[in-house]
Amino acid sequence: MTSKTIELSLDEIFNLAKASLLKHGANEENADAVANTVTNAERDGSLSHGLFRIPGYIKALQSKKVDGSAKPEIKEVTPTIFRCDAKNGFAPLAHKYSLKPLIEAAHKFGIAGVAIQRSHHFAALWPEVETISENGLVGLTSVSYTPAVAPAGGTTALFGTNPMSFAWPRPGKNPIVFDMATSSMAKGEIQIAARDGHSVPLGTGLSSSGELTTDASEIDKGVLLPFGGHKGSVIALMIELLSGPLVGETFSYETKERDNGDGGPVQGGQFILALSPEICSGKDTSDQIEQFINKYNEIDGVRLPGARRHKNREDNGPRQVNAELINTVIRLRDES
Amino acid sequence: MTSKTIELSLDEIFNLAKASLLKHGANEENADAVANTVTNAERDGSLSHGLFRIPGYIKALQSKKVDGSAKPEIKEVTPTIFRCDAKNGFAPLAHKYSLKPLIEAAHKFGIAGVAIQRSHHFAALWPEVETISENGLVGLTSVSYTPAVAPAGGTTALFGTNPMSFAWPRPGKNPIVFDMATSSMAKGEIQIAARDGHSVPLGTGLSSSGELTTDASEIDKGVLLPFGGHKGSVIALMIELLSGPLVGETFSYETKERDNGDGGPVQGGQFILALSPEICSGKDTSDQIEQFINKYNEIDGVRLPGARRHKNREDNGPRQVNAELINTVIRLRDES
Repeated sequence: MTSKTIELSLDEIFNLAKASLLKHGANEENADAVANTVTNAERDGSLSHGLFRIPGYIKALQSKKVDGSAKPEIKEVTPTIFRCDAKNGFAPLAHKYSLKPLIEAAHKFGIAGVAIQRSHHFAALWPEVETISENGLVGLTSVSYTPAVAPAGGTTALFGTNPMSFAWPRPGKNPIVFDMATSSMAKGEIQIAARDGHSVPLGTGLSSSGELTTDASEIDKGVLLPFGGHKGSVIALMIELLSGPLVGETFSYETKERDNGDGGPVQGGQFILALSPEICSGKDTSDQIEQFINKYNEIDGVRLPGARRHKNREDNGPRQVNAELINTVIRLRDES
Repeated sequence: MTSKTIELSLDEIFNLAKASLLKHGANEENADAVANTVTNAERDGSLSHGLFRIPGYIKALQSKKVDGSAKPEIKEVTPTIFRCDAKNGFAPLAHKYSLKPLIEAAHKFGIAGVAIQRSHHFAALWPEVETISENGLVGLTSVSYTPAVAPAGGTTALFGTNPMSFAWPRPGKNPIVFDMATSSMAKGEIQIAARDGHSVPLGTGLSSSGELTTDASEIDKGVLLPFGGHKGSVIALMIELLSGPLVGETFSYETKERDNGDGGPVQGGQFILALSPEICSGKDTSDQIEQFINKYNEIDGVRLPGARRHKNREDNGPRQVNAELINTVIRLRDES
């Protein structure tokens, strides 16, 4: 794939994404929710979760693995635990339905969780936790996927890239937020590096024969390593548990076994936690937070996580999108 | 300090720890709770949290920083959030008082949290989460401390070693549990390596002049680095937030500012989360968990976190304890 780009406005990105999803059987509210997620990723410069994902979303619609007309169902299991059956639909609509009761319960009880089942998640996690933090709450979530990462010490993939995302609210400001794979690198980043012929740092992953390599396409066919050795590995293990059995869903290896291999997002689970600092602490902590952030920013060489995305977000102008990718999505939109 | 050891039974370790705490003003229930924590650490082979901590506990009693007769108070803020005022006491008694209502609420509502304030934590975190997991629940907790770790990219300490601990229940078996500093190495491990003259891997930390070094005593005077670079660093940042402002307590740098520098455990906060997999998932997931663990254990070169401690625990026999340490604690017990 070439690295030539075409300029598109955010509206054009949204409209292209939405039209391509509608064309392949998504209904209005599903296409809208997914296109919104894709557009926000392009806006923030998270290219691996932008239009890059549309061909995969469409594969899942074409194979009927995903129901493009799914209407998520929310059950209040207890006043503080909700279970969302995404009904084989894409995750963004499940989030739209789940986050409202989650946020209300966390405001009332100080803590709440939603267990999402039968959801097809193919995006970043910061949209969920940033929505929670915009409501004055702390958000924490994670998902597993299919085996791509070997536990530290091993050469066989068992974990997904298992991202986790956390956001802390700052009234009137961008939250403190991180969203990161617990692999040394996200699968989407490896795929983009492989596509563009870029090498990656040694230690990122192993080739299919179990050897360390800097060749992204070799790692894409082989196995990633967790970030941070054994410590990162146990965090990836925790995410397998929280995103699978905790919510009545599958481990990454089980997810793969039931997937049809169409290349679209697999079905899995997600746990989303919301906490109220006000209720837990009994105080207003905003001044304390800002003083800490000042202290943090005074240290040479460090930066707040999420800062790059939030900076990109300030720009409402057009975005440069890979030309071949746009042509692919346009072809998908115009297929007859 | 020499590396000569003396053999002590677990009862002897408990009695020595308890007597030394009573001698310096702890009351019966506080001395009992702390001695129990210390003994369980020696039992599990977690030497840096065993008798090694007694001189520090006693310093805090001698300086009156810690109230050895503290009686923790628990407030039910909502049906699922408790606030525990540890009343300037040692953490183990605060845990004893907090975990019962936390566990009951999590069984009833599927999720619950306790915000511990004014607590002096000087131990591992697995005792809290293993107690939760013995009750069929998932436990997650963390604490901050005083600045010892530079955010990734910087050379100035801002974070504590900020450990986090997680346990997943397995009926009739040891839980899946990890307890780890988010620094490359725990402060206690660095102190033991410095004491014994052992070197540590490059990348563990920086000397007081900001240079990479393998000399543990230089790092003890300088600054540790987070595990796993930027990714570990943002997890340490999250722990600053969850263990400080979330629970109405201090960031590590604020903790240090108010501490009297006696070398005993500083005052700080702790958040403990408990989740019910049964309520969240709506199923019994124990078979699924055991199948996953089999899959995990089949991979060459990997091991379950916590396994070494649980193996040590099976041995009820005497333990080898550093002779000079024992003599120090005996002197403290026998002081007039």
